[in-house]
Amino acid sequence: MPGGFHNRVLRINLTTGDISVEEPGEEFFRTYLGGWGMIAHYLLKELPRDADPFGPENLLIFAAGVLTGAPAGGSGRNAVGAKSPLTGGFGESDMGGYWGAELKRAGWDAIIITGKAEKPTYIWIKDGAVELRDAGHLWGCETLEVERTLRSELEEPRLRVAQCGPAGERLARMACIIGDATRAAGRTGLGAVMGSKNLKAVVVRGTSGVEVADKEAVRKIAKWLSDNVRNLWTAGMQDFGTSGGLQYLSTIGGLPTRNFQEGSFEGAEKITGSTMADTILIANDTCYACPVRCKRKVEVKDRFPVTPEYGGPEYETLGAFGSVCGIDDLEAIAYANQLCNAYGLDTISTGMTIAWAMECFERGLLTLEDTDGLELHFGNAEAMLALVKAIVQRKGFGDVLAEGALRAARFIGRDTERYVVHVKGQEFPMHEPRVKFALNLGYIISPTGADHMHNMHDTSFTQSIEGVRSLGILEPLPADYLGPEKVRLFKYEVDWQVFWNCVGLCMFMPYSKLQIRDLVSAVTGWDVSLFELEKVGERALALARVFNAREGFTPADDAPHWRISTPFESGPTAGVKVPAEAMREALLLYYDMCSWDRNTGAPIPAKLHELGVGWAIQ
Amino acid sequence: MPGGFHNRVLRINLTTGDISVEEPGEEFFRTYLGGWGMIAHYLLKELPRDADPFGPENLLIFAAGVLTGAPAGGSGRNAVGAKSPLTGGFGESDMGGYWGAELKRAGWDAIIITGKAEKPTYIWIKDGAVELRDAGHLWGCETLEVERTLRSELEEPRLRVAQCGPAGERLARMACIIGDATRAAGRTGLGAVMGSKNLKAVVVRGTSGVEVADKEAVRKIAKWLSDNVRNLWTAGMQDFGTSGGLQYLSTIGGLPTRNFQEGSFEGAEKITGSTMADTILIANDTCYACPVRCKRKVEVKDRFPVTPEYGGPEYETLGAFGSVCGIDDLEAIAYANQLCNAYGLDTISTGMTIAWAMECFERGLLTLEDTDGLELHFGNAEAMLALVKAIVQRKGFGDVLAEGALRAARFIGRDTERYVVHVKGQEFPMHEPRVKFALNLGYIISPTGADHMHNMHDTSFTQSIEGVRSLGILEPLPADYLGPEKVRLFKYEVDWQVFWNCVGLCMFMPYSKLQIRDLVSAVTGWDVSLFELEKVGERALALARVFNAREGFTPADDAPHWRISTPFESGPTAGVKVPAEAMREALLLYYDMCSWDRNTGAPIPAKLHELGVGWAIQ
Repeated sequence: MPGGFHNRVLRINLTTGDISVEEPGEEFFRTYLGGWGMIAHYLLKELPRDADPFGPENLLIFAAGVLTGAPAGGSGRNAVGAKSPLTGGFGESDMGGYWGAELKRAGWDAIIITGKAEKPTYIWIKDGAVELRDAGHLWGCETLEVERTLRSELEEPRLRVAQCGPAGERLARMACIIGDATRAAGRTGLGAVMGSKNLKAVVVRGTSGVEVADKEAVRKIAKWLSDNVRNLWTAGMQDFGTSGGLQYLSTIGGLPTRNFQEGSFEGAEKITGSTMADTILIANDTCYACPVRCKRKVEVKDRFPVTPEYGGPEYETLGAFGSVCGIDDLEAIAYANQLCNAYGLDTISTGMTIAWAMECFERGLLTLEDTDGLELHFGNAEAMLALVKAIVQRKGFGDVLAEGALRAARFIGRDTERYVVHVKGQEFPMHEPRVKFALNLGYIISPTGADHMHNMHDTSFTQSIEGVRSLGILEPLPADYLGPEKVRLFKYEVDWQVFWNCVGLCMFMPYSKLQIRDLVSAVTGWDVSLFELEKVGERALALARVFNAREGFTPADDAPHWRISTPFESGPTAGVKVPAEAMREALLLYYDMCSWDRNTGAPIPAKLHELGVGWAIQ
Repeated sequence: MPGGFHNRVLRINLTTGDISVEEPGEEFFRTYLGGWGMIAHYLLKELPRDADPFGPENLLIFAAGVLTGAPAGGSGRNAVGAKSPLTGGFGESDMGGYWGAELKRAGWDAIIITGKAEKPTYIWIKDGAVELRDAGHLWGCETLEVERTLRSELEEPRLRVAQCGPAGERLARMACIIGDATRAAGRTGLGAVMGSKNLKAVVVRGTSGVEVADKEAVRKIAKWLSDNVRNLWTAGMQDFGTSGGLQYLSTIGGLPTRNFQEGSFEGAEKITGSTMADTILIANDTCYACPVRCKRKVEVKDRFPVTPEYGGPEYETLGAFGSVCGIDDLEAIAYANQLCNAYGLDTISTGMTIAWAMECFERGLLTLEDTDGLELHFGNAEAMLALVKAIVQRKGFGDVLAEGALRAARFIGRDTERYVVHVKGQEFPMHEPRVKFALNLGYIISPTGADHMHNMHDTSFTQSIEGVRSLGILEPLPADYLGPEKVRLFKYEVDWQVFWNCVGLCMFMPYSKLQIRDLVSAVTGWDVSLFELEKVGERALALARVFNAREGFTPADDAPHWRISTPFESGPTAGVKVPAEAMREALLLYYDMCSWDRNTGAPIPAKLHELGVGWAIQ
């Protein structure tokens, strides 16, 4: 028997209360490996065209990967997907922690939720038993309170909760899904889809192990990781979390600052990972089976009380509430992080939406009248925190911002849309394309809009040519280059990283690609090749592009942001921009490399056939 | 240090006598792995457009692969290439035996020969020492005689000879290059290129080993092969050679018979591998380091004296001089095989050219006047043997046939061209597309014309789905199917088999794809992936297509033969044809899957960039 999956997909219709089990079969799991690919499959097959993301017909899919729950580091992740209320296209985001592994331990590979519950509801899964339960008493509650209440009322101290938080209940389009009160499937507004279905939480307790095909082989890989965490770059992740490089990025001009107007932040040192380690950090946290322990637990007592139970800010959060808002107050950022984890907001979109408002305010496009009297200058931490709260409460200006920066700008008008730094309506994450050129291409072509979860190759590549040699890329390429060799590397790496989002693997693992192949084989028992795994990623990306084309996206939506083609005015990268013409050429070259139709933006039929998904031809 | 190559390419200009050494570098070897890919690289880079294949500017390239000479079964092969005098396009053929390994043992990866010697010459390579020597006394000699003479005059009993034979000297376009007097780089007329350069032989003696990166890992794979030869399908190869399945093919209607007019041959039993084993076989032979021992040594004493020193007929030869000519006389076929090995003729093209003449004779398109009085009925073994000799001697009708079937037909006229069963001027090998549909696609798209050395997937696939699972092909597909799933499988397998022709690996090895990956890694020390290896094949094929487009080939040259779209009239496959419309659809789908331009037949620029060979964009 192959391992890594149960061949059990839980189907729940919240309108009718119907609960059923689907067994898609081994071929299905080998074709997609779970996660993103599985989500794209079901969205294309079952969601009617032009469906309202907030309508009952939207599918909300929690999909583990074949690695999720395997006893080896990096396997604590699962994907969540739906038609995105933020972009109107393919919505997908991944979270770490323990929830996904618990789902697998309960005997499930995925949950597909349709319909809309009449009243607030939560799903309670204990191994094979599945119940829909009233969530009236949880509605409006902060995530930690929900966790505590559920643990108590279900008498299961070890259950795991994925929930939408008050922001999702109120359909904030940057609402996320929070797991373990500390992790987030952050992007594309999936928490609001949950809220739209009156679904407060998916609560899981699994008491079985996750079967793997070759225990000894998995154990060996896990041991290799434990033995080497301190010898590899993961040591830095352990010591300083994801924000260990924040200050360095500022030094080289690559730290998004003041709504991407600048690349260096004068307050970077105050919010970087080592400063956090020296001040508010009280402990490391980790995800399922992972010895890297890159997660943070921070505590702040006085001004902004922050409890370690809500974890601590990631690099993305430190950027989005810090440098991007011109704020160097680490405690305020930690507090904003806590608010987001408590209320279910994506820290990236939230910070970026506030930063947009700040830029508009400074440019005189927003007035105190618009902002409910808040002095929205860059650097105003109090105003930033007030807006986070207002977004959750959907009060005044917060109600406007809760729609995301693009919709807010369109609501307000006055040329404010110019300053929304986004692709497809999703705000940029904290990575500066003017330092890593190919990231811009990544933001543009991603079916989820500006997204860093499948486009990060520039960094890893400049760190190590070794990481890509097994794909046949033999020469290092500079980060500020966008020629054909880079586009090739980019294509291979994007497909590879989308594969991660299928299989449920964390990008912060120091495994080589061939070790990852070994891990997938050890877990599943399938003798997979890197060729097959690359194709899994390419397939998943292709299906998401088909989905977007079906929903009305065209190549015009793969547009670079003007700001990235505008040089920095100051700092170490003054004058640097991603040249618009080079960008255009790279984009077309990438289209051709992917066999994406230049007219529709979707893969041509032959590509879908080549990926074994000819059924997806529209 | 990586193993598997020396970074030494021998350059010889026969016009000037210049001999030099080129060191292309590690990246070059990892990009191409040798063989086909290396040949395509140099032909595109160095051969002037529209060069005469028989002109001194043609490059004749002997290219080992990184596996050639490694101490593991299947590694005894090398490629030879040039612009083909038979097709006018990319010429490439591979041979087994010992010559390629000897070249590697002498410290060379490849030899690139240009120019034309003033008088018959041979190249004598002893390790690093290279000489051009007079071959006047060898000119016109049979291959075995040449070997004996060279061993004696060079006082090197263990030297290895690759030579052109009298057929090549006389520019027969189906002349091949003979190695070890028993093996052939058979297709595309490369022996004639050798002859056109006044180059009789390339003689090699190497006294060093071939360094591999991980001896123990190579040894383990070699041991696995030795241990399992008798447990796997290789047992049949050992017992009956490549013709073990000949009779079975006839039973199912897949044995090319009487110039592909039929698929079953009433005399199949008389010429099949088991009959050979029971009659004329006296011993097995083998290639460098190979425990499979599929090669034959046969002996015939009376009618047609055949010496085991010339080996014995392969399946291709038994088909080409047997069923395709309607001949069931095993001894006559063995003798024809000996003539071809002695004179340097490709048995496939020779047999097929004779079969074409037989069909034309039977249809009244050729008369006794044309055939110098030979009654060219199917089944006339004496006539067949007479023609083989006449071709080498270029006497009378033989002189016409020496140009290959297509040129002969065009010379004769009278609608005889209709019965030339070929693609791009190269005659079909002994595999029937009406039984294995995708083979027809293979013949059509191959840059070398109808060729079975990179299109055999149908058989292996129907034998075992396991062989392709690691490429993500999860369901078996019938051989008589040509839909999109088959085209996908075909693409993956063709790329994979072209990779074999780069790396120097025999197709008769029972290694899994992942074992082959392991072998390449063990030999080279590079941590290659199946993704990388597939790309090596795809790259090599792409470059050959660029070469052909440059030489004037268009998609019109990728034309299926009408006969394959015509049903068999009798036999177990009566009525079966490859439907022309399905064929056309499959071809266009394959073009699109490969990103080949439908107007030029060459890969689009983005594909060449994606393969890391943007320099090849024309």
